Amino acid sequence: MLTDNILSRGAVMKKIIQNTLLGSDIQDILIDGTKISGIGAGLVSSHPEAQIIDGKDTAAFPSLINGHTHSPMTLLRGAGDDLGLHEWLTECMWPLEDKYTDEEFYWGNRMALMEMVRTGTGFFNEMYFNPHLALKALEETPLKARINFPIMDGMNPEVGKKQWKDCERFFEETTAPQGVQLGMVLHSVYTDSRESIEWVRNFAADKNLPIHIHLSETEKEVQDCMEAHEGLSPVEYLHQLGVLSQRVVAAHTVHLSETDIEILSDTGVNVVHNPGSNMKLASGVFPYKALRDKKIPILLGTDGAASNNNLDMLEEMKLAALLQKVHTGDPTLMSAEEIFEIATKKGAEIFNTGGGVIELGKEADIILMDLKSPALFPAWNLISSMVYSASGMDVKTHISSGNVLMEDYKIPGYERVLEEAGRCFDRLRS
Amino acid sequence: MLTDNILSRGAVMKKIIQNTLLGSDIQDILIDGTKISGIGAGLVSSHPEAQIIDGKDTAAFPSLINGHTHSPMTLLRGAGDDLGLHEWLTECMWPLEDKYTDEEFYWGNRMALMEMVRTGTGFFNEMYFNPHLALKALEETPLKARINFPIMDGMNPEVGKKQWKDCERFFEETTAPQGVQLGMVLHSVYTDSRESIEWVRNFAADKNLPIHIHLSETEKEVQDCMEAHEGLSPVEYLHQLGVLSQRVVAAHTVHLSETDIEILSDTGVNVVHNPGSNMKLASGVFPYKALRDKKIPILLGTDGAASNNNLDMLEEMKLAALLQKVHTGDPTLMSAEEIFEIATKKGAEIFNTGGGVIELGKEADIILMDLKSPALFPAWNLISSMVYSASGMDVKTHISSGNVLMEDYKIPGYERVLEEAGRCFDRLRS
Repeated sequence: MLTDNILSRGAVMKKIIQNTLLGSDIQDILIDGTKISGIGAGLVSSHPEAQIIDGKDTAAFPSLINGHTHSPMTLLRGAGDDLGLHEWLTECMWPLEDKYTDEEFYWGNRMALMEMVRTGTGFFNEMYFNPHLALKALEETPLKARINFPIMDGMNPEVGKKQWKDCERFFEETTAPQGVQLGMVLHSVYTDSRESIEWVRNFAADKNLPIHIHLSETEKEVQDCMEAHEGLSPVEYLHQLGVLSQRVVAAHTVHLSETDIEILSDTGVNVVHNPGSNMKLASGVFPYKALRDKKIPILLGTDGAASNNNLDMLEEMKLAALLQKVHTGDPTLMSAEEIFEIATKKGAEIFNTGGGVIELGKEADIILMDLKSPALFPAWNLISSMVYSASGMDVKTHISSGNVLMEDYKIPGYERVLEEAGRCFDRLRS
Repeated sequence: MLTDNILSRGAVMKKIIQNTLLGSDIQDILIDGTKISGIGAGLVSSHPEAQIIDGKDTAAFPSLINGHTHSPMTLLRGAGDDLGLHEWLTECMWPLEDKYTDEEFYWGNRMALMEMVRTGTGFFNEMYFNPHLALKALEETPLKARINFPIMDGMNPEVGKKQWKDCERFFEETTAPQGVQLGMVLHSVYTDSRESIEWVRNFAADKNLPIHIHLSETEKEVQDCMEAHEGLSPVEYLHQLGVLSQRVVAAHTVHLSETDIEILSDTGVNVVHNPGSNMKLASGVFPYKALRDKKIPILLGTDGAASNNNLDMLEEMKLAALLQKVHTGDPTLMSAEEIFEIATKKGAEIFNTGGGVIELGKEADIILMDLKSPALFPAWNLISSMVYSASGMDVKTHISSGNVLMEDYKIPGYERVLEEAGRCFDRLRS
């Protein structure tokens, strides 16, 4: 039975997930409001008022944390594959993005939220235009997220100045709902002028806001930066400008020198591994071992659906582990446990979501995996099955801060979103 | 509605897949017995006697061809991950395989067939012990396959001699059912004595049987072979023994010299790309471009569920394309269309399955993909969605030679198989 309060944040009703596999035992999980308030056997009899969520033949895991995505690009999934990066951007992505109206931004966001609910992502770090429409979409599907206001001036500070004003107004006018954080986007060193970079640095420091950025994704980005900025790499350039700190979440970070890694470590930057996108666009391989050994906080992200081509974090865990193994020749590198922890517990710590593990007092950010799926059978090691075998389509039920967003594969409102997003797709391709 | 004749090969009833998306049009597909006998709009009115399969909101594709797998290893999924190859084999796989009885072989096969039906594989090339139990499993789930009798003598010709006799008896006593081919396995140059290799060569030539082999999977295999056989690589060694020909399907083929590739090309060997397994075990990267440029016939395979860890050919297509792109730095290499054709049309040609494309007169080996899955939306390019976005869990209906093995996600007999395979799992881990 799906709850009535699905559209409201901060669920108040008591719920019990009955008879789910948690760790090595069949347990009940009691949810009071947004938090986990009981774990044990036979909780139903002592809480007869609670709503029951059937956990039979499922295993409970924390929902997944997506460190970098571009939600509205769901509408561009599969447009312009197998192209080089430049051709892909100039001939395909940019012309299509130019056709986006508020409708496309809004329904692209809604569609992405549906995909994330369906495939078990409970929190995502967003980078796209029109963050107010991302927030509007989150009113209908109360996932957790960090929504970032983007500054991307095309290296033109005059354009930047207008964006700065819009940004100031956005932060004056906007109150994020419960579970949603606000932050800033600096798109990259190759799309933002020095003036805008410095403005974002100051604004973020003043308001204590996080900054999300694309950093050292391609070899070309690094070379161009060094040519433009007296031999400084993107990391060195941003460091010289005083941007890098613990408030920064940097996506991709593929092409890093030893000096770059020292700087990232010293300044406390969080980095996001995006294996699917890095592989498909042939950007290169994330230097996982070097970053891990320096204890740099590492996240996992899908990137947008135009370059991945989905938002399935279960698949992304497999891609991450497999890529590291084959690239280094070390089959023990990035174990299933390691990448699973990155995508759940560690990610939740970095974004301070309150979830990431299923424990008393934690946020009830929970997915129930279908143990009857061939991918989850047999249960030698379910963490390994999550990483190497299952896909997001094996998520059966999805609970976010106590809200049941999907139960037994059914997501209320899904059909409507598919229909409206379909209308946007028809407009885009016409 | 599921058919009554699901357990019998060679379906006789007329069926119509109504209103599925085929190419760019909504079509009906008429199936007469095992073959496609009509494609068009409105076929239902002219064939009122036909059974209707609802194709609404689906796209029809040929089912997928798995060039290399070990079916009963479904029971070992997730046992011993993140280990080096040697430790994985000696401490985990071999001790567990030693515990296999006929029950584990049989139900492991049944479980694999369920997974393949579920995830859209219509034909698979099998390599494991006890092929008669694979055939027995295929009586219950009439997929198409090539079942190969294995010779693996542990470099001991005396052991080999017993296997040769068993092999002769197998081929005397066995009649393969419709759609099922029989062949031989030579496990590898490091597990089979020269005597067994020559025996298989002769037996296969006499009986006109295909040979399936692991070939040049790891660097160690190549080095060991060169040490043991006067500097000959595995390819050169087998070629000297006269084994290599069009009848050979060689799995992995990761570590190949230019001379090796010349030999494979000259002799007409078919090779199987196994990206998931090669990545997870850090074996290395299949030299796709070099093999393709030599017009060597290329297949795609999942390997067994112990080293992949699933039999999902849709995922395998993505891994294949992504691995080639990031490894070569060329995002245009192995396009979605290219790998999709390998996994369908070209694979079907190599194995002569009669299917691989949806055309008049072809075998009705068809999967219907769920267009309401987020992974398949929107339809800019559905081949791209199949390769880069969808997983096998988006297959909604699966038809094999006219038999409806799964309809609207329901597979008759699935629960029973899960239960029995579960009992085998309990025995193995006890």
